Amino acid sequence: MESLPSVDSVQALLTRGPFHQWLGLQVLRVGDGEIDIKATWRPEWVVNPDAGYTHGGILAALIDLCADWALVSTTGRGVPTIDMRVDYHRAAMKGDIVCKGKVVKGGKQFSVCEASLFNEQGQLLASGRGVYAMPAPKSA
Amino acid sequence: MESLPSVDSVQALLTRGPFHQWLGLQVLRVGDGEIDIKATWRPEWVVNPDAGYTHGGILAALIDLCADWALVSTTGRGVPTIDMRVDYHRAAMKGDIVCKGKVVKGGKQFSVCEASLFNEQGQLLASGRGVYAMPAPKSA
Amino acid sequence: MESLPSVDSVQALLTRGPFHQWLGLQVLRVGDGEIDIKATWRPEWVVNPDAGYTHGGILAALIDLCADWALVSTTGRGVPTIDMRVDYHRAAMKGDIVCKGKVVKGGKQFSVCEASLFNEQGQLLASGRGVYAMPAPKSA
Amino acid sequence: MESLPSVDSVQALLTRGPFHQWLGLQVLRVGDGEIDIKATWRPEWVVNPDAGYTHGGILAALIDLCADWALVSTTGRGVPTIDMRVDYHRAAMKGDIVCKGKVVKGGKQFSVCEASLFNEQGQLLASGRGVYAMPAPKSA
Repeated sequence: MESLPSVDSVQALLTRGPFHQWLGLQVLRVGDGEIDIKATWRPEWVVNPDAGYTHGGILAALIDLCADWALVSTTGRGVPTIDMRVDYHRAAMKGDIVCKGKVVKGGKQFSVCEASLFNEQGQLLASGRGVYAMPAPKSA
Repeated sequence: MESLPSVDSVQALLTRGPFHQWLGLQVLRVGDGEIDIKATWRPEWVVNPDAGYTHGGILAALIDLCADWALVSTTGRGVPTIDMRVDYHRAAMKGDIVCKGKVVKGGKQFSVCEASLFNEQGQLLASGRGVYAMPAPKSA
Repeated sequence: MESLPSVDSVQALLTRGPFHQWLGLQVLRVGDGEIDIKATWRPEWVVNPDAGYTHGGILAALIDLCADWALVSTTGRGVPTIDMRVDYHRAAMKGDIVCKGKVVKGGKQFSVCEASLFNEQGQLLASGRGVYAMPAPKSA
Repeated sequence: MESLPSVDSVQALLTRGPFHQWLGLQVLRVGDGEIDIKATWRPEWVVNPDAGYTHGGILAALIDLCADWALVSTTGRGVPTIDMRVDYHRAAMKGDIVCKGKVVKGGKQFSVCEASLFNEQGQLLASGRGVYAMPAPKSA
């Protein structure tokens, strides 16, 4: 295996995306087929102004992108999602979210990855999986 | 069946959610177990500043909320998502998105709904499904 | 589009699979991106000998194969499943099952298809989707 | 937590189902929110008589039932599946299959579980998740 990309280099790639900026993404750790990312709460995430919890669509976006970027040690960048699924485990109240992504099975044409989301108390909020299209290998 | 809620009343409910406001949601039509909603493109949706396409997480959020609100003629409000899945069919370029939601099978404890997203040219961008927790019936 | 394969030719292909034989599959109709298949109840399908209903795994298998073979007008054969999902709507009691498959979005590398299962009374038992790997085009 | 049900007692419950018998299920281990089950290969599992690999529907059935029975330490029995999803990682050739199920998040009304399938060489064949309806608590 080649050496892992640095946290700073992955952060720089991620930050190029305006949606990633809006989500306040901070790369915490890059492993081999693993990544930890923190997302920064903002008031626009709220679906219900009385209860104050975060919209499930935000959680779905975090699952998708974190599972995708778990591949970065192989792909070197974000890749297209073929499909994804989310299970919701607990209402996400006001607060930042830690996202842990992991490759379940890497492949040549597509890879399966999973991600889990935690609140600041370490409670599991949502988890899910995606299938990602792998980039064509560069010709020599 | 009771009479359908009006477009204006559903719009008012939806608009209470800050995330819904951020997505620029406009209710186009409310049917029996069906809803059409338009989402208004904004620059923060973009994932890739060169290609300019919308992040799959935005599409996932639209699938989730539109499938959920297809139930509004029964539930009278948005309800918790148990799980959801999205298939991505085509890159979503700059532009508003029309979301069409439909109940697949309503139930007492939970209901299954689907939604499809279209660009302004009427091309299918993504489609998916969710399972939603139904509210407990009000006691008489 | 080329002409559709005949019901008899698809039946002959399907019947080559021992599992398909065990499921008692009968091709009812082949359309453009669509297929109807009947599966013949057998006592080994039962999960609960008291209630007598069919195991959800049988329904999952029918969803998978029927969604897959909805592609037969393009692929000419069954193709590998990348992933699949099933929603269960109603307990399946003793009796044959009619499976209706349909292509949601065909693609070059992979296609998304859906299938719905009905009992002999026409009630929806289960429905779901799969993503299928398309065969490489034959070189000229 | 109450004491775990014994392997023999879970085996006896499982074996009541004719489909479980047909799958040749053997309970290997029962843990707290975990179960290991072996399924015994039979010629009817084959989809392609030339290549000899097992139909994905069999794998889907094993994912579903193994995820379901991971709950047995809480539920004391198999419970209805609300929905399930399977990712296919590798063709399953002739041979028995070891299924490992685990509760992801238990709940009062429904629980999310996952399962992974391995061939006799310990290679991952498929993995997936289901959402299961929990039995109503017995009144005192």
